[in-house]
Amino acid sequence: MPKAIEKKKIVVIGVGFGGLQAIKKLSKDENLEIVAIDKKNHHLFQPLLYQVATAVLSPADIAIPTRSLIGDKKNVTVYLGEVEKIDVQSKKVYFQNHAEDYDYLILAAGAKSSYFGNDHWRKHSIGLKSLRDALSIRTKILTSFEQAELAGDPEETKRLLNYVIIGGGPTGVELAGSIAELSHEIVRNEFHTIDPALAKITLIEASPRLLATFSPKLSEFAKRRLEKRGVEVLTGTKVLEIDDEGVQIEGRRIPSATIIWAAGVQANSIGASLGAPMDRAGRVIVDEYCNLEGHPEVFVIGDIASYSKGLERPLPGVSPVAMQQGRYVASLIHGDVKSKKRKPFRYTDKGSMATIGRQDAVAQVGNFKLKGLLGWLAWLFVHIFYQVGFKNKISIFITWVWSYIAFRAEARLIQDEVEAKADATVTN
Amino acid sequence: MPKAIEKKKIVVIGVGFGGLQAIKKLSKDENLEIVAIDKKNHHLFQPLLYQVATAVLSPADIAIPTRSLIGDKKNVTVYLGEVEKIDVQSKKVYFQNHAEDYDYLILAAGAKSSYFGNDHWRKHSIGLKSLRDALSIRTKILTSFEQAELAGDPEETKRLLNYVIIGGGPTGVELAGSIAELSHEIVRNEFHTIDPALAKITLIEASPRLLATFSPKLSEFAKRRLEKRGVEVLTGTKVLEIDDEGVQIEGRRIPSATIIWAAGVQANSIGASLGAPMDRAGRVIVDEYCNLEGHPEVFVIGDIASYSKGLERPLPGVSPVAMQQGRYVASLIHGDVKSKKRKPFRYTDKGSMATIGRQDAVAQVGNFKLKGLLGWLAWLFVHIFYQVGFKNKISIFITWVWSYIAFRAEARLIQDEVEAKADATVTN
Repeated sequence: MPKAIEKKKIVVIGVGFGGLQAIKKLSKDENLEIVAIDKKNHHLFQPLLYQVATAVLSPADIAIPTRSLIGDKKNVTVYLGEVEKIDVQSKKVYFQNHAEDYDYLILAAGAKSSYFGNDHWRKHSIGLKSLRDALSIRTKILTSFEQAELAGDPEETKRLLNYVIIGGGPTGVELAGSIAELSHEIVRNEFHTIDPALAKITLIEASPRLLATFSPKLSEFAKRRLEKRGVEVLTGTKVLEIDDEGVQIEGRRIPSATIIWAAGVQANSIGASLGAPMDRAGRVIVDEYCNLEGHPEVFVIGDIASYSKGLERPLPGVSPVAMQQGRYVASLIHGDVKSKKRKPFRYTDKGSMATIGRQDAVAQVGNFKLKGLLGWLAWLFVHIFYQVGFKNKISIFITWVWSYIAFRAEARLIQDEVEAKADATVTN
Repeated sequence: MPKAIEKKKIVVIGVGFGGLQAIKKLSKDENLEIVAIDKKNHHLFQPLLYQVATAVLSPADIAIPTRSLIGDKKNVTVYLGEVEKIDVQSKKVYFQNHAEDYDYLILAAGAKSSYFGNDHWRKHSIGLKSLRDALSIRTKILTSFEQAELAGDPEETKRLLNYVIIGGGPTGVELAGSIAELSHEIVRNEFHTIDPALAKITLIEASPRLLATFSPKLSEFAKRRLEKRGVEVLTGTKVLEIDDEGVQIEGRRIPSATIIWAAGVQANSIGASLGAPMDRAGRVIVDEYCNLEGHPEVFVIGDIASYSKGLERPLPGVSPVAMQQGRYVASLIHGDVKSKKRKPFRYTDKGSMATIGRQDAVAQVGNFKLKGLLGWLAWLFVHIFYQVGFKNKISIFITWVWSYIAFRAEARLIQDEVEAKADATVTN
């Protein structure tokens, strides 16, 4: 009689880039039982979130229901819920009135916007981490055009058409280019009392240059191109205050109704419940096996992990890191079953990309660099290729082709209806 | 010196099926100035709203930004706003702190869900008139599956998986068939602790048969087919009460977490500010020229109008009526400019259609009837053909082909994230 194989249970918290890769690989072994917990019901292709914010793509273009991706696998159970507590001693995860035991834990809960201690800024600006964020930004921008059309007062019109983006990383650069295109080009003939081409986009970065992870030459290129597209780029500029009416920088106030925060992230706070050392961004410090120190059964990967073994600085919070770590920890668990010796994680740099606008992007892999049209074509190819799901690839491709030809952004939908103001003073 | 032509100003309230047709036709005459006011920023293809609710289509598939449709015409000004008051004596429309004069007024503000005097039912059920409604229904259904997966308690699981649709017109029938498909087929292998095939869909209609405007044979066919798909159809059944926990009908209580109201509509309440006679559904009674009695410069069309001149009963609130009236009143205004004598409105019946599910629909034009696969193909063709916008036609076509082949509903997105309950009792 064959010996009954003990089923190992793996709990994965978060089905982002890292969690999804781990689950896909683990689920191939039918002797493993996987429980995935996520507070979203979908896997999100975050690099294109800014295109949902600027009304080019729809949420369903860049998000796939988690159950549709992994729910039909017999050894994978999916729960929608937010984890409240992890107890690494008793090996339990607590969420939505439930507790789940584990043999292995993979914590891949990601990151959220960080305001560096100025948490009251969160009230006056919008981050860009979720579909909800993207739709809020979209509504804010579209509503600002509509309100400007009816404003009358020139000062208020100016404030409504000022868009401030804080943070000059890829997200900030892509948003700035994309809002410039939307306001200066796409909708320019559709308003009669205001000229949307008067819209002013300001991109603020505290460090001396945009796109700090790219070469200085590409940073300079991106800055020049953005300026050509009508974006005011302020590098080396610190934000002093954000309120309901605008942004204060040194020596100047920028009145604005739409303030977008793309300046920084901090790890999901659930990491703290592990009781382990964390870095300044709240990321859990892991060893060379992506393990919590002293816990070979607990893996922490992606944006919530700080991996710096043998490196000058911790690995950045980008999708290739998370994906490679996801596959790596799955292979370690597969190896454990076969009692293989663990090998440390090794990251292969896949480079970085950022679009500036139509026919314009920067891309860098090691010393190989692309910019302008070639960079843009590479960007298009990579972003369609890495889409999860065939339907999404097709849908995004068609939408982009259509937007390119017709110069349109057809997802310009304000989902809520305006309501007549109860306190409206009827004037003639 | 040629005589200066006096520019006539036409204010159109509502850019639905009726308003859009009127504006398109009127805008061809450059001597007319058109002002369009709508509380939505988009034109909505309402007949497919149920497919947004059941996660097949995305909002952008069935809605087009109003400005994208008509905003680039030089003689059309678009405002986002809800009209608060119409003064037919001084010929002024008041909205969002503004007042707009008119020479002609076209009131095409549509209808909203009606609860026949039981307004407290609105709190416990969701109508289906706007994108926001459709997304609320979508979230409710998807969340009910997720909560059932975690519920534990069999009674609560049952309640969560009970879906009640009130109203057996085309919207109710289409929703019932579509929810049955979603719960019984599409997601059936993606849940492990519950079986979504246990989902129970109940369609309640007060009158003796479904689809009252179709022939009794087609009504019977639709009922049989829905039952075959697992829908419980209760005709001749009055709803006595709706509360947070379910629906009370005579002799029976149906516990349910998802209650959808598709039973009736009433006209937009702005019609009352005209001070003219209205019918029981709050629709403004118009004469044979779609005019408010005594006001040849005020037209009321579509769902907000009650047109019954020379007819046994008023024209129904369906898109062909609104579209034909929109074109008709535009031609009257064109005729006025040339001092032509007005001819009364004549409606051409284009028939009705309703889908039941995959490969199954009923269609009726006069005495010509289609059902089953043929009805479904006719339905598909008509609903793609009448889409406004080429991109939408393509996008819907591809999504439908994909859903058909892969048997998927890929817009199953809950846009909000779950949040850990603060008061959660952590149990083991």
